[in-house]
Amino acid sequence: MAFGWIDEQARTRRRAGLVRTLRPRPADSPLLDLAGNDYLGLSRHPEVTEGAAGAARLWGGGSTGSRLVSGTTELHVELERELAGFCGFEAALVFSSGYAANLAAVTALAPHGSLIVSDAGNHASLIDGCRLARGTTQVVAHADPDAVRKALDTHSGPGVVVSDTVFSVDGDAAPLADLAEAARQFGAGLIVDDAHGFGVLGSGGRGAPHASGLAGAPDLVATVTLSKSLGSQGGAVLGPARVIDHLVNAARTFIFDTGLAPAAAGAALAALRLLRREPERALRVRAVATALHARLTAEGHEAVRPDAAVVSVRAPSPELAVQWAADCRAAGVAVGCFRPPSVPDGISRLRLTARADLTDEQIEHAVRVIGATRP
Amino acid sequence: MAFGWIDEQARTRRRAGLVRTLRPRPADSPLLDLAGNDYLGLSRHPEVTEGAAGAARLWGGGSTGSRLVSGTTELHVELERELAGFCGFEAALVFSSGYAANLAAVTALAPHGSLIVSDAGNHASLIDGCRLARGTTQVVAHADPDAVRKALDTHSGPGVVVSDTVFSVDGDAAPLADLAEAARQFGAGLIVDDAHGFGVLGSGGRGAPHASGLAGAPDLVATVTLSKSLGSQGGAVLGPARVIDHLVNAARTFIFDTGLAPAAAGAALAALRLLRREPERALRVRAVATALHARLTAEGHEAVRPDAAVVSVRAPSPELAVQWAADCRAAGVAVGCFRPPSVPDGISRLRLTARADLTDEQIEHAVRVIGATRP
Ligand SMILES: Cc1ncc(COP(=O)(O)O)c(C=O)c1O
Ligand SMILES: Cc1ncc(COP(=O)(O)O)c(C=O)c1O
Repeated sequence: MAFGWIDEQARTRRRAGLVRTLRPRPADSPLLDLAGNDYLGLSRHPEVTEGAAGAARLWGGGSTGSRLVSGTTELHVELERELAGFCGFEAALVFSSGYAANLAAVTALAPHGSLIVSDAGNHASLIDGCRLARGTTQVVAHADPDAVRKALDTHSGPGVVVSDTVFSVDGDAAPLADLAEAARQFGAGLIVDDAHGFGVLGSGGRGAPHASGLAGAPDLVATVTLSKSLGSQGGAVLGPARVIDHLVNAARTFIFDTGLAPAAAGAALAALRLLRREPERALRVRAVATALHARLTAEGHEAVRPDAAVVSVRAPSPELAVQWAADCRAAGVAVGCFRPPSVPDGISRLRLTARADLTDEQIEHAVRVIGATRP
Repeated sequence: MAFGWIDEQARTRRRAGLVRTLRPRPADSPLLDLAGNDYLGLSRHPEVTEGAAGAARLWGGGSTGSRLVSGTTELHVELERELAGFCGFEAALVFSSGYAANLAAVTALAPHGSLIVSDAGNHASLIDGCRLARGTTQVVAHADPDAVRKALDTHSGPGVVVSDTVFSVDGDAAPLADLAEAARQFGAGLIVDDAHGFGVLGSGGRGAPHASGLAGAPDLVATVTLSKSLGSQGGAVLGPARVIDHLVNAARTFIFDTGLAPAAAGAALAALRLLRREPERALRVRAVATALHARLTAEGHEAVRPDAAVVSVRAPSPELAVQWAADCRAAGVAVGCFRPPSVPDGISRLRLTARADLTDEQIEHAVRVIGATRP
């Protein structure tokens, strides 16, 4: 029978305790949220939701077509200009998601004959970008500029190094300056996915490239998502104008995808302006992450020191990670639970996300609940 | 220098007259729009824009995380239930775009050892899905069930046939019933992308699978986009509940992507309810397409008879297609211009889209302008 093989896979998943189910949340969830990526607490900020509402009213529910046909509004261009300016890049291009932005950047910048050097801990969307690109991919050890050098040294055509700036599972930062130096040494480009750095790292949340003094460099391309720190949806590629022009002409997830909905663009723009006005939000989310880590470590948990807003706490096994997260939830605290097969290293953990709007009392409460439910 | 090769490509594009540039539109564009995919004229309907605005206010600017972590709201589930019910499927799963929905359906349903039989005219997102999938892809002649049979006959593992229902470039329909029969004969599944059929074909716009009596079949999976007939953003996969459960567990563009923004879900839900209440919108868009085609043909244009809402008019060359579209625009009518490399067959054409809210006078005006600017 068609699709018969999926039943066997479903049985295997059930036996292994790896079945994933959706847990719809109500609008007024009573849970303390340490699971989402709304790092700056902007998703429900009235200026952001009014940004969405106003844009929908003015521009419509959708953008109505590909960005190259009818899907580019003046709102998209405004958002692109402000994103580029804020992060210190020459130009920006907005996509319907961060996932689509990553597919675009990698596929359009790794042509036939090129070598892509990709960090082993990279996000799924970068990996899919590598798999779709015409170039050849070499996966290198996590956060290892020497491994990058070794890979580039074997290749003569165009090269491009691809890395998350902050890795989504453990929250550790990539050695950006070293990676840039390694890439430069071989005339290769560097593509970094700043999904978890933008809004959190750098002066006023300008992101990891800005923090490393790399923003605006001619050989650097960064991607960001509008769905985390900006509390909206969408993604963007930031880089030299000539690279952005190239993406307009060559990136399939730009050419063959409907433009970002006006409401999402409007919400992201409102959030960006808020962040400009209230740069302390970026400081606060880092302070919250540091406090969470310090308190958890003091209580004897094995937690990775956070380089940005993600705090990863090791769990003894996939089953116990699931149980732990469920017990936290039952006690009123929502935490992420990352386990195989969606982690590259096979390690199960709770994934906590700091938010700029968490109070010290909420941090303390979360730490108490996580301790009390520890398996 | 890093990314040096793109300058050479840019020069080639310039020489060939194939440079693409963005044309931002204002909120109150005076152009008559025959370029977008807002088939039912719902994108700016007050119920749709209020659906977006209300959802942003109630749920926030973004969904804050992966659908499996914090990104599933009751609104997403409501939309999924109503989409499945309306189109006649057991279950539905909403994605951040139609592109992501197509990547998910094809990759998750074509495992290692499977054969994907893909129509030569399929949309870029289905093609990328084939390239990402672990199965082997065989591209077959356009709209040719016998070619599908021949391909499936050579293979012993799981098979899946992949096709647009309405092809986006020429607006012609796939032979769905024949494709389903061909797939069934070999125990293969059928995945159809109803991006341009949903809202237009079938009783009250229930889509091409419904029109062919295939909706809800155990071996059929359909994808739709929320960005065309529903005037919003996002996509969905429709199919048997066991297949949808499989996608929740296996589809990377579901697991590793932030959930659709509430505003987009709210706009799509409002549009769907409007369509339910005003099923004549689907009839009207087809009548407009038929009228456009009849009038253009009467004026001596070479236009493809539309099976849905897209009317394709042949142009003499890429350069003249660009010129023609520019002249139409200068005369107040926005039309799409499809040309290499974004068309599979190398033929350049104007692409006109019918809308349910076009008046007979607007149709007449568009035909006059297209005739007067003919190269
Ligand atoms: C590192 C990283 N890159 C890209 C993405 C994709 O961005 P989006 O969810 O906006 O599509 C995510 C998360 O979703 C991510 O964690
Ligand atoms: C046939 C087809 N499938 C899929 C898509 C992608 O849908 P979306 O733009 O909503 O991502 C499109 C157009 O954009 C399309 O024309």
